[in-house]
Amino acid sequence: MRMYGEFDFIESISEIFRSMPSNGFEGIGDDCAVLPIGGEEALVFTSDMLNEGVHFLTDKSTPFQIGYKSLMVNISDVAAMGAKPVATLLSLALPNEKFGEWSAEFMRGYKKASKKYGVKLIGGDTVGSKSGVCISVTAIGRAPMANIKRRSAAKVGDVVMVTGKLGASAAGLRDVLAGKLSTRNAKLHLMPEAQVREGEWLGQQASVHAMADISDGIASDLQHIIDKSKKGTIISEQNIPIARGASFHDAICGGEDYQLIFTVDRRDAEGLAQRFEEQFGKPLYKIGRIVRPNYDCYSIGIENKSGEVMYSSAGWGGFNHFGFED
Amino acid sequence: MRMYGEFDFIESISEIFRSMPSNGFEGIGDDCAVLPIGGEEALVFTSDMLNEGVHFLTDKSTPFQIGYKSLMVNISDVAAMGAKPVATLLSLALPNEKFGEWSAEFMRGYKKASKKYGVKLIGGDTVGSKSGVCISVTAIGRAPMANIKRRSAAKVGDVVMVTGKLGASAAGLRDVLAGKLSTRNAKLHLMPEAQVREGEWLGQQASVHAMADISDGIASDLQHIIDKSKKGTIISEQNIPIARGASFHDAICGGEDYQLIFTVDRRDAEGLAQRFEEQFGKPLYKIGRIVRPNYDCYSIGIENKSGEVMYSSAGWGGFNHFGFED
Repeated sequence: MRMYGEFDFIESISEIFRSMPSNGFEGIGDDCAVLPIGGEEALVFTSDMLNEGVHFLTDKSTPFQIGYKSLMVNISDVAAMGAKPVATLLSLALPNEKFGEWSAEFMRGYKKASKKYGVKLIGGDTVGSKSGVCISVTAIGRAPMANIKRRSAAKVGDVVMVTGKLGASAAGLRDVLAGKLSTRNAKLHLMPEAQVREGEWLGQQASVHAMADISDGIASDLQHIIDKSKKGTIISEQNIPIARGASFHDAICGGEDYQLIFTVDRRDAEGLAQRFEEQFGKPLYKIGRIVRPNYDCYSIGIENKSGEVMYSSAGWGGFNHFGFED
Repeated sequence: MRMYGEFDFIESISEIFRSMPSNGFEGIGDDCAVLPIGGEEALVFTSDMLNEGVHFLTDKSTPFQIGYKSLMVNISDVAAMGAKPVATLLSLALPNEKFGEWSAEFMRGYKKASKKYGVKLIGGDTVGSKSGVCISVTAIGRAPMANIKRRSAAKVGDVVMVTGKLGASAAGLRDVLAGKLSTRNAKLHLMPEAQVREGEWLGQQASVHAMADISDGIASDLQHIIDKSKKGTIISEQNIPIARGASFHDAICGGEDYQLIFTVDRRDAEGLAQRFEEQFGKPLYKIGRIVRPNYDCYSIGIENKSGEVMYSSAGWGGFNHFGFED
């Protein structure tokens, strides 16, 4: 959950630590860092912060919803690695008036989400705040080492798939800001559902290569996959699964859908989709393919109905300028 | 790093998760949670949050100092378990004007502290803030399972020891608030030093039983040890090592000294102190002993020069009322 303009700072953070010994940790800069612990097993680690006025408005969402979402956005990163979330640490900065009713409801929501997937709260901190609410969650996941899916593992020829329809959260945010808090999309925005069991299951499939969760929109999250994999990708305009009430722009740039995007060996794409549907009673969506990089530029191309491919040098956010409707 | 009045909330948090399966984690409620990972090894986990206006003032401390301290207060909890800190995740909420110079200086301080003890930054998050700076750190430590020291392990007859003089940070905070930012104590408050190597070394000593770090003052931190161990303790008034410029009250209630307090088998107390001094070139301070609980009340007694012992039913904070000077 990042904001534009902070990427430079994040880059500089990882840069200044590059020279230090890894202490056995791998995959820094992926959805999670990975620590092999022997016995062919690994732990994965991720942290997210949610801040009042930036990630949520206390007059637009209930404390229960905020608690629920705080857990979900974190275990979504664990699912994106093919791992099972096992524990979290929760730190909360709360103004005085939020201790009591508000904090108890927050914890009810946090617990509901935790219990759903068997994630234990093992530690954290509670501090006062002179300003707004600030929430930080660290999630720990566990998986066989062989199941871990990295952003860097996409191969030329892979099919690109997503686990659900996109854009619902962005459309829901519009509803929320307009005061319509009870629409289907508003609820999906306020209480997103991480693809926890789906992520663990996809982790077990050897044909699945790279995976990420869709927290910033596929324009951004798919870009991370091709950057790390040093590949290109071509996405089919008419195959993007757009949620009801959402626009094409919502679906590719909206973010916070917390579906999973992954690449799969094309020989298993059909078979995987069939097994997934048998397992979860819902389809996978095939949205494109991984190709060789275009002049060393790891770009996303988008193919329209006539088979014409357009590239945006400014990243996929730039596709607006090619005439797509908002 | 907790504030009074939040303990009820923390209790309720751990209570509502008590019914859930542990997923292999132990020691929840200690300085760190513990996860045995096989091969007689364990990982430990802790999170702390620092919030502008509550834990630091951006006009009284430099961003470098805040970054340094953010790492130190977290790895202090790892040291308190007898473990070696190996990695952290850092999440930062920053107002717009703090991106750039401020955040770069913060990271310089964070890195300086990390590098000193070989602690790798493996992940985190950076988000915008509409109000102040909020910092959350999760620290991960590693140790042989046999080295892990728990608060609950104090035995009757154990000697209670601390690794350094106490009260410097509380006295330093007074200096800081008075605008004297360069005194020795002010510097110790603004850039405390966790007892990282000392903690790992004490972890290796089988005669050391219970251990905690002194983040809230020994009145509070020793109380945690005897509560968890279901014991009593008697502390010798004249043996409390008081830092220069600090009062008795600073030393027992001040907090943020980040020294270690531990209990040791009395037969090894002298030997341990000698080996510690050889190793680190500084003394250990023997401040009291562990006794049977007094009528099922896990209380701290304090013994004056004449051998009279006073108990405070309101916890050690209450000792002020017995006439000790501030």
